[in-house]
Formats: sequence, structure tokens, C-alpha cells
Amino acid sequence: MKLLEETLNSIGNLDKKAMFEAEERVNKLFKPAGSLGKLETIAIQLAGITGHVNNSLSKKVIIVMTADNGVTEEGISVIRVETTDSITKTILRGGAGVGVLGRHAGSELMVVDIGINIDTAFPGMINKKVRYGTGNIMKGPAMTEEEAIKAIETGIEIASEAAENGFQLIGTGEAGIGNTTTSSAILSVYADCEIEEVVGRGAGLSDEGVKNKTEVIKKAIGLNRPDPSDPIDVLSKVGGLDIAGLVGCYLGCASLRLPVVIDGFISGVAALLAIKLNEKSRNFMFPSHVSAERGGRKLMECLSMEPMVYMDMRLGEGTGCALAFFIIEGAAKIINEMFTFKEAVGRDQI
Amino acid sequence: MKLLEETLNSIGNLDKKAMFEAEERVNKLFKPAGSLGKLETIAIQLAGITGHVNNSLSKKVIIVMTADNGVTEEGISVIRVETTDSITKTILRGGAGVGVLGRHAGSELMVVDIGINIDTAFPGMINKKVRYGTGNIMKGPAMTEEEAIKAIETGIEIASEAAENGFQLIGTGEAGIGNTTTSSAILSVYADCEIEEVVGRGAGLSDEGVKNKTEVIKKAIGLNRPDPSDPIDVLSKVGGLDIAGLVGCYLGCASLRLPVVIDGFISGVAALLAIKLNEKSRNFMFPSHVSAERGGRKLMECLSMEPMVYMDMRLGEGTGCALAFFIIEGAAKIINEMFTFKEAVGRDQI
Repeated sequence: MKLLEETLNSIGNLDKKAMFEAEERVNKLFKPAGSLGKLETIAIQLAGITGHVNNSLSKKVIIVMTADNGVTEEGISVIRVETTDSITKTILRGGAGVGVLGRHAGSELMVVDIGINIDTAFPGMINKKVRYGTGNIMKGPAMTEEEAIKAIETGIEIASEAAENGFQLIGTGEAGIGNTTTSSAILSVYADCEIEEVVGRGAGLSDEGVKNKTEVIKKAIGLNRPDPSDPIDVLSKVGGLDIAGLVGCYLGCASLRLPVVIDGFISGVAALLAIKLNEKSRNFMFPSHVSAERGGRKLMECLSMEPMVYMDMRLGEGTGCALAFFIIEGAAKIINEMFTFKEAVGRDQI
Repeated sequence: MKLLEETLNSIGNLDKKAMFEAEERVNKLFKPAGSLGKLETIAIQLAGITGHVNNSLSKKVIIVMTADNGVTEEGISVIRVETTDSITKTILRGGAGVGVLGRHAGSELMVVDIGINIDTAFPGMINKKVRYGTGNIMKGPAMTEEEAIKAIETGIEIASEAAENGFQLIGTGEAGIGNTTTSSAILSVYADCEIEEVVGRGAGLSDEGVKNKTEVIKKAIGLNRPDPSDPIDVLSKVGGLDIAGLVGCYLGCASLRLPVVIDGFISGVAALLAIKLNEKSRNFMFPSHVSAERGGRKLMECLSMEPMVYMDMRLGEGTGCALAFFIIEGAAKIINEMFTFKEAVGRDQI
């Protein structure tokens, strides 16, 4: 609890001076004012985060939190294996979506076992298991509040490790069978809409499957009565260890002044909880794409964020971050490499 | 005219067999069916274009067509220099937006003078001038039909040159003061809406400036009476040489079975004309972003295309292509590098 409290207390504001200087620089670049749109605002936000006008984002990492969810007992996923372990191994072997797209973006991966339901011992895995999967939220809370805090603090520690290793841009990803169910449960607590509007097909449920999943979430909410004013209560009662770990990543990055990218539905829900815990953490986040999972757009509304990329993706793992990495790094390069009007034509405008 | 006719006649269909095989491969990959969204459809379209399931897109180029427009006499742009030449030089020196983002995407540039209004002699420039800028469309046609055809054929030749140099993915860009005016004029002929809806601020016009620009376009359309059923008539009467060159690029790429990416407003209008000349050319195109220029969304509707990236950009030059290049190359890598279920877990699904 001490690490979480310290982290929450240490999250600062964006550096207004650096942002002002970055904006001045952007406005001198050889282009019509504002014509690079969000690339310009990203470059300015980066300056606010790091305190520097010029930023290099060549060292990038996607943190992939992996965990199992007890609610899979209720048949809420079409995936039939009993553990997230086999998915995680494929990620570590470089053959999953995030492996391919991460490499393409020049990113490394940190794959964390924060709660897989069996012992994992695969080369490259970071073992930080908080418990062997969560409890079934239809029968009780997913985890205790202590476990939720421990998982958040694990995420904070992983963010610190990434910073120590020199990473300049952080992505968030996850693997966890059943984690669209826990994410929808959390989002339903905060979104101003019917539960049905934030429950989707996950890995490919039928209409019937979605109906069952919705019922499961309704019962889980009814039984556990998560308190919206207490994000850790919500997380521990109907969330998951992967989500908790990602909450910690966002808070850790904000505290360390590292830019951090949201992937899709699950990591977006984690971002929402991080913001509920400390509103200032949002300033250090960037959206990437909008998940095609039902509830994806609603989630972006709740976050008040406008995604950059619309690709109808819903794989998770951090795949959307890889696409956004390229754009965010491009924004940094604009400010570093574009000529000013003066450099281009010897005067201040054309 | 012979080259244009031959090119139009040589545009084939997508290779259905390769697309079927690509789709089979995509469906075996280690992920929920369809969960990579448009990355999957792009990978399949690439197979249809090249005839191969596996594609490498490591050699990429953005073709930048540069030309002047006589209509700048009417004060339709806030840019006060009298020639596009100075912009083009900055592009060639690597300091413009497309230089920075193109390098970031691993792309080269081919910068073509297809109609700048002075002699250009800058290292790296490809000199293919058809004439010294166009005529003022408020006083007469932009160019003759012969000139329009010559400019289209120049674009076809440039696409051939790109193919000969081994480029596997082509982007389209432009620089030309006044070219949002000519583009809006062309789009107004085809879009089912009021002219006002497709006329924007360009490089930064005031409300008053936009009003003047709209009036100029209305008068140009009234005077020249372009015939919508004859795209070359429309192009020669109210278009520009940069647009004509890009029309040729799209047709040339389609004929050569090279994937080609649309940038923003001006290159999108050129894509629309290419499709009007041969509907099959659209199968070889990919959209990139939606231009923030007023009319940008309308244009995407006219093209029946859904952009990948929403960044509120309106710089042109091919900057949007650079962002899309990363995504399209990523789609190709998915099919090349992701494990199948069999490779991942030793069986056909999980």
C-alpha cells in the first residue's frame, strides 16, 4: 500500500514551459499552421511529459500482463484451453500478433505472469504471480483488496524496471482468457449506459454466448456490489490481475513521467481505473486504436480520448500500441527533424 | 494517348486464388477469427494485387507530383510565394513533413516537376514538366486535353520507373499552391452536395477567403462546364497537372499490379478520377488517413473507402501515406511471421 500511495502522491503536472516551447517550435515548422493535426498535439504533450522539447523514442517496450480469471468456469469464453499459459508462451516465442507488430515498430516486450493459474517457467517470462488466477466473480470477489493492491504495485515496479532499462515509450498489453468479461464488468460500473452496451463477443462468442456473459456480469455486480467511488473495490471485486497490473503500469509511468500508450478494451479499462485513482495520470497516456469489441467506443468516451487508428482490431496483447508507437515516434521526429520556415526559405513564412 | 489507352486496357482483376489462399492462411493464425480487423483484409487484398500470399513491402516510395496552378491569381491561397518551387526544394532537402515521416517509414521519395511555373534545377528533382503551370480556371480551362493526357501518361511512366527500381509499395503526394481549389472544383463535379461542402481553408484561409475560393470555383465550373461523364474533360478544364500526374500513378500502379496508397484531399481526388477512368483501378489502392480539409470525409464517401488513420492532418505531400505504409507493411508481416495455431500449440485451435 505504501508504494501505491507514494506513487499516487508523486504524479505531477505536465511541464507547461516545455509545452509552450514545443508549441512555439511546431508553429515555426515549414507547413501551414496546424496542418499536422494530432501529430502536433502529441509532440507538445510529449514535451509536457518529459520536460524536453526534443524527444527520442527509439527505445520502446510493450508490457504484457498475463493472468487467468476464475469466471471462465461460467463458459464466458469460446477459448477452450484451461489456462492463459499457452497463449503467453506464443507471445514469448515471438509468434503472436504483438510479437510481429511489436518487432515491426522496433519495440521489445516485457511479458509478466501476474496471475496465471499454473506455474510458468518459460524463458523470458517475468514471474510476478500474485495468485493462481482470480476467483469466479459470479460466486464472490475476484480477489482481496490486498491482492489487488499487490498487483497494482507489481505494475508500478514493472514500469520502474522499464524506466531503469532506458525505455522511452511504454505500451500496455495483456493476455488472459475471460478478461473481456472482467473488463466489461468494470466498465459497466462507470459507463452511463445499460450493461448490454458494454458486453461483446470477446474471442468470438455467439449471440447466445454474449447473453450468458451479460447475465454472468449482472449477477457478479449484484452479488459483489462494487463501489464506484472506490476503484480498488471495483477492481478487486469484479476485475482481474492483468487489469490490476496495467493500472499499476499507468500510475508508475505517470509518476516516472514516461509516455504510456493504451491498447484496446482491457488496457483501456485499466487506464480508466488509473485515472479514477489519480486524474493527473491521464496526461501521461496516449490512446492508440478503438477496439472493435462492443463497448470499445463507449470506453473511449469514458476516457474522453480520441483514438488515432481505426482498424476494427480486437486482439489485445498490445497490438494497437505497436501501430500507435509508429505515429507517436513520428510526432517526436517532426519536432526534431522538420525544417523551420527560416531553415527552409530563409524567412519566417511563405 | 496510346500509353493511356494501353494502360487502361491492361488493368486486371484481383487474383482470387491468391486471395483465397491468403484468407485460409489468415484464418489459421494464432488469434480469434477476424480479430486483426483491417490488417487481415489488407493482407488479403495485397495477395490479390501481387498474386502472392506472402509479400515483402520493404522497398517503398512516395511519388510527389509538384505543379503550379494559374488560379492562384485569384487570391485563393494564403501562401504568398509565387511558385511551388521553394516548397519542392524543401521536400528534396528532406526537411518537409513528407521527408521526415517518409524516412521514419523507411520510404524513399520521387519528386517530380510536372508543371512548376519556373525552370527547376535542384538535385534529385525528376524533370517532367508538361507546361509552366496551368491557366487560371476562372478565365478558361486549366490546360488542353492533350496536356492532361500527357500529364497522366507522365504519371504512368513514373509508376513504371518505380516498378523498375524495385519499389513494392507506392505512395502518392503532391505540392502545388492552389491545389485544394482545383481539387474542390473536381470533387464538386462528382459529389452529390453543394459546392460549399467541399471547399475548405487549404493552407489556412479565413472565412472570407473560403467564400472567395468558393465563388472562384463556382465561376470556373460555370465558365468551363466540365462534363462529369468524361473525367479527362473535368481534369483538363478545372484540374491541375499534379492531380493529372497522380491519376497516371494510380493507373500505372494498377496496370503493374503494385499496391498504391492514397494520401489526402488532392491525391484522393486524383484517385477518384482514376476510378472514373477505370473502376478496376480501385482494387489496387489503399486509403490512408482522412484529410481535415473540408470535403475530406465527403471525398472518402465518394471513394467508398474507410481510412485507417484519423489524425486531423491536412498537409498533403504524401504525409498520410507514410503513416499508412507502416500499417500496410505490418499487415504483410502478420501473414508472413505470425504462428498458426498448429505452430503455436500443436493443434488447429485452442
